[in-house]
Amino acid sequence: MIRLKFSIALKYEVVDFASDFIFNIHAAHTRCQTVVNEALNLSQPVEPVVYIDPTYGTRFMRLKAEPGVLTVRYDATVDSAHHMESPARIAEVPIAQLPPDVLPYLYPSRYCQSDRLHWFASREFGHLRQGYWRVQAILDWVRHRTKFLSGSSNSSTSAVDTLIEQVGVCRDFAHLMIGLCRAVNIPARFVTGIDYGADPALGPTDFHAYVEAYLGRRWYLFDPSGVSPPMGLVRLGTGRDAADVSFATMFGTINSYQPLIAIEAINDPANGFMTPRFCQEAISSHADFATVQ
Amino acid sequence: MIRLKFSIALKYEVVDFASDFIFNIHAAHTRCQTVVNEALNLSQPVEPVVYIDPTYGTRFMRLKAEPGVLTVRYDATVDSAHHMESPARIAEVPIAQLPPDVLPYLYPSRYCQSDRLHWFASREFGHLRQGYWRVQAILDWVRHRTKFLSGSSNSSTSAVDTLIEQVGVCRDFAHLMIGLCRAVNIPARFVTGIDYGADPALGPTDFHAYVEAYLGRRWYLFDPSGVSPPMGLVRLGTGRDAADVSFATMFGTINSYQPLIAIEAINDPANGFMTPRFCQEAISSHADFATVQ
Amino acid sequence: MIRLKFSIALKYEVVDFASDFIFNIHAAHTRCQTVVNEALNLSQPVEPVVYIDPTYGTRFMRLKAEPGVLTVRYDATVDSAHHMESPARIAEVPIAQLPPDVLPYLYPSRYCQSDRLHWFASREFGHLRQGYWRVQAILDWVRHRTKFLSGSSNSSTSAVDTLIEQVGVCRDFAHLMIGLCRAVNIPARFVTGIDYGADPALGPTDFHAYVEAYLGRRWYLFDPSGVSPPMGLVRLGTGRDAADVSFATMFGTINSYQPLIAIEAINDPANGFMTPRFCQEAISSHADFATVQ
Amino acid sequence: MIRLKFSIALKYEVVDFASDFIFNIHAAHTRCQTVVNEALNLSQPVEPVVYIDPTYGTRFMRLKAEPGVLTVRYDATVDSAHHMESPARIAEVPIAQLPPDVLPYLYPSRYCQSDRLHWFASREFGHLRQGYWRVQAILDWVRHRTKFLSGSSNSSTSAVDTLIEQVGVCRDFAHLMIGLCRAVNIPARFVTGIDYGADPALGPTDFHAYVEAYLGRRWYLFDPSGVSPPMGLVRLGTGRDAADVSFATMFGTINSYQPLIAIEAINDPANGFMTPRFCQEAISSHADFATVQ
Repeated sequence: MIRLKFSIALKYEVVDFASDFIFNIHAAHTRCQTVVNEALNLSQPVEPVVYIDPTYGTRFMRLKAEPGVLTVRYDATVDSAHHMESPARIAEVPIAQLPPDVLPYLYPSRYCQSDRLHWFASREFGHLRQGYWRVQAILDWVRHRTKFLSGSSNSSTSAVDTLIEQVGVCRDFAHLMIGLCRAVNIPARFVTGIDYGADPALGPTDFHAYVEAYLGRRWYLFDPSGVSPPMGLVRLGTGRDAADVSFATMFGTINSYQPLIAIEAINDPANGFMTPRFCQEAISSHADFATVQ
Repeated sequence: MIRLKFSIALKYEVVDFASDFIFNIHAAHTRCQTVVNEALNLSQPVEPVVYIDPTYGTRFMRLKAEPGVLTVRYDATVDSAHHMESPARIAEVPIAQLPPDVLPYLYPSRYCQSDRLHWFASREFGHLRQGYWRVQAILDWVRHRTKFLSGSSNSSTSAVDTLIEQVGVCRDFAHLMIGLCRAVNIPARFVTGIDYGADPALGPTDFHAYVEAYLGRRWYLFDPSGVSPPMGLVRLGTGRDAADVSFATMFGTINSYQPLIAIEAINDPANGFMTPRFCQEAISSHADFATVQ
Repeated sequence: MIRLKFSIALKYEVVDFASDFIFNIHAAHTRCQTVVNEALNLSQPVEPVVYIDPTYGTRFMRLKAEPGVLTVRYDATVDSAHHMESPARIAEVPIAQLPPDVLPYLYPSRYCQSDRLHWFASREFGHLRQGYWRVQAILDWVRHRTKFLSGSSNSSTSAVDTLIEQVGVCRDFAHLMIGLCRAVNIPARFVTGIDYGADPALGPTDFHAYVEAYLGRRWYLFDPSGVSPPMGLVRLGTGRDAADVSFATMFGTINSYQPLIAIEAINDPANGFMTPRFCQEAISSHADFATVQ
Repeated sequence: MIRLKFSIALKYEVVDFASDFIFNIHAAHTRCQTVVNEALNLSQPVEPVVYIDPTYGTRFMRLKAEPGVLTVRYDATVDSAHHMESPARIAEVPIAQLPPDVLPYLYPSRYCQSDRLHWFASREFGHLRQGYWRVQAILDWVRHRTKFLSGSSNSSTSAVDTLIEQVGVCRDFAHLMIGLCRAVNIPARFVTGIDYGADPALGPTDFHAYVEAYLGRRWYLFDPSGVSPPMGLVRLGTGRDAADVSFATMFGTINSYQPLIAIEAINDPANGFMTPRFCQEAISSHADFATVQ
């Protein structure tokens, strides 16, 4: 088990008119991730509405803020249990056997135009032995090809752009890997989170983006940007790509400040809590909604 | 009430290897649309699996076909009831009051990159009086601006392309209208169907694509290409855009032939069945899944 | 006559290996623009090669710099004479009468994809009365539609992007206007320069980009971003779009610093030098190479 | 020496209004290519104007056709002499030593966005030994990666599209190869022509597109689509990409028919005329304008 304690501090300036926000900063409620405690503080006396996606346990918070400064602070402690598996035992699932709710993750989406990448991906990865290793080969290809560079992409950058320009941030790495997986008929989706253990050379802790690929009847976690151990992820949102799970969607004229994020791992072996580490096993922390909290 | 009887005949040639297909050609099961009878005929002795999307009643059929010719024939008779409303009474819904399951239709998708269209749409439509008429104004703009031309677009053509090039087919009209609606914060989605009453000058009956916009707590139907009365729609699929509800998704090397589609309206006033016609009222035939068939 | 005195100070850090630069920072030698005096200072003991484009008088400077800091300082005083004309007297030139060397400016280029804009431009501008005023109408449309925002675009942003996203800097305004002109068969090209008289609210003086359209047998100057009087331009380069006349093209791993630019107008009516001002006349300062200096 | 005899037959229907055409179907006048005889026939009594590009000897024909059918027939016999060189002796030219008139072919153009391909090309080809073989390696990569498929692209398809989608016709192969060459600082340009000796399996003879790369102080010819021996080319146009040298640029509402092209080689060894063949040597037929005919 992993116990992570983190905080997210956001700051905005609402110009002119009361404006709507939709946040996705709450830790998800899933069968693998339990929220031990959490607290939310808002600088304005607004009534946020929090609702849970019935499929994935993603929590969205909607509120309308008045002109002026809005700060949002969210603190939580979260326990995660992971399913670990030997990669050698994980096969791809034939299309004919994919569960219906997995099929949408074969289709192209805003930032992952797998329809356009079909021939490219087939030529690079079509001949490889099927299974977990093929997805790992796609990850290695993306990581090897793409340069991590802050500020090199923007909110309209897509997998096609990243494939051509070969530079991006974690979200671009994830979109490209998802696009390539879908293009060879492997269902793949986008996960946002807070990550423990990132290389400090990459700058302050920030929101992170991961990939999940559906293999062997589970969603397995991959981190194409490679900045932190997948085990150290706190899951916030799960969707087709960044269009589904932006940490903040804003409607109005709003100035944004850099998010401030902190995270620590509780190292308490006596109680079964270990520090996240890189490991060889495949990791799954599927996102099914935990109906009993 | 409207009763429509239609048939869809598809033909493929599977080259080399047994190949998977996912079809969306069954009439949807919704609270507004009842399937009176239906029949499916396949030229190969395969076992199709049909599953229903639990949200929208969209039915997908998956099968694996052997090399050689595959023909698929689907016949159905479908009854539709529509909610009719005076446009003047239909307001837009503030973001703060949108149901959570409607929010995803505010976000950009593969073919409707509303994120990129924000300023364009704001300048064209941002100042218009809110309500049904604003959506109608977007439809009029798309229809006026875009030339209907068979063969002018392909499966990667998106709303941004259509806005620039101003030419397309019904699916392109729909994508552009959806992209512009979302860009001014009006939830919009993509509906596929078979349409009764199209102008024969536009060629043989084909699959059609519509738009639904969420207004006044319902999804209202719009046909930006304007080829047939919205009342004459048989709904097949409902999704974010064409990526979700392709009538045929194929995995393998497959040659496709032109679909053959026929439709007729049962004009039987004695039993309450009228012929679809153009009308001034707003039409809603929301897609909620009918749990009791 | 206008006499402008300006300086350009550039700074680079060449990393690792000796690297090639091609600069276009010298004032052009044209029949309308005379270089009264000029001086170049380089921080490295390199031998620059300066060559003149035989058509337009654009001067390029090529050099290879060693690792370490490179500073480039160019000072010049330049006299400009303009041809002024009443807009009402300026007609468009039928294609059949365009000089052969003007035809390339009808064709699409890297940043001005006029081929894709044909229908869009035809619908917006095709019906307008031909002549100078139609080009002015295109300028007005671009200026009205596009928001000037520093940092909103990058070196791959093209006219199609700017049309969709409606935000950019002077180079994006110019590319969009050029693309729209060519799309209605008006030859248009890209001019770079240093401008006198920009609104200080837009930030420090920077390189500027203009448009020239071929009308009435001359190239007339237009400034779609509207930041300064066209009369206050010192011409550096003339080309199809920014790909032709970048102020600095670099080959290697090089860090760039913000250019520092200063410009002043010599107000000396006694000697015939006036300060640039906005005016109603059409202005032409064609770029033909002055063979006699 | 090679003597080729060919004909081009074009047919158009001009709708509504008299319309301008610019053709590039005349054989170029260059120092390597001599027009032995030629004849032009037009179905309308129009006066074409033919002008020659002073740099490359490309000949353009401009005319205005009346509503109705226009047929254009051009017949010519052309002699070509080629410079042949052993690839092993051909080096790349350092940027500092490139002639000024070659530099524009380093820059991105409409269909060859080399600016966006910089990292991609550097990773694939940056580490290869410089020289003719590096350009050959780029050609091999493009040919291996791209599938030749008629009708798979259109007039807005660019190098970036072809790299992603990996399918195209000869013009797309050429654009991709040019884009990749420029991205690693090798000047490259686009040549159109009629080719002798194409594989008949690819369909009837059509206009062809080639690449020229500047190496060892000459422009060497490459045919990335590989359909015919480079020696069998009759050069029509030379430019940055297809935007410069379309065989027909039309201004108006015009229906086009499929061009009919025929070509034969004069095999007359006694007089020094041989049949074009594939060979191992590098071939150059530079395009400098032959001032003395």
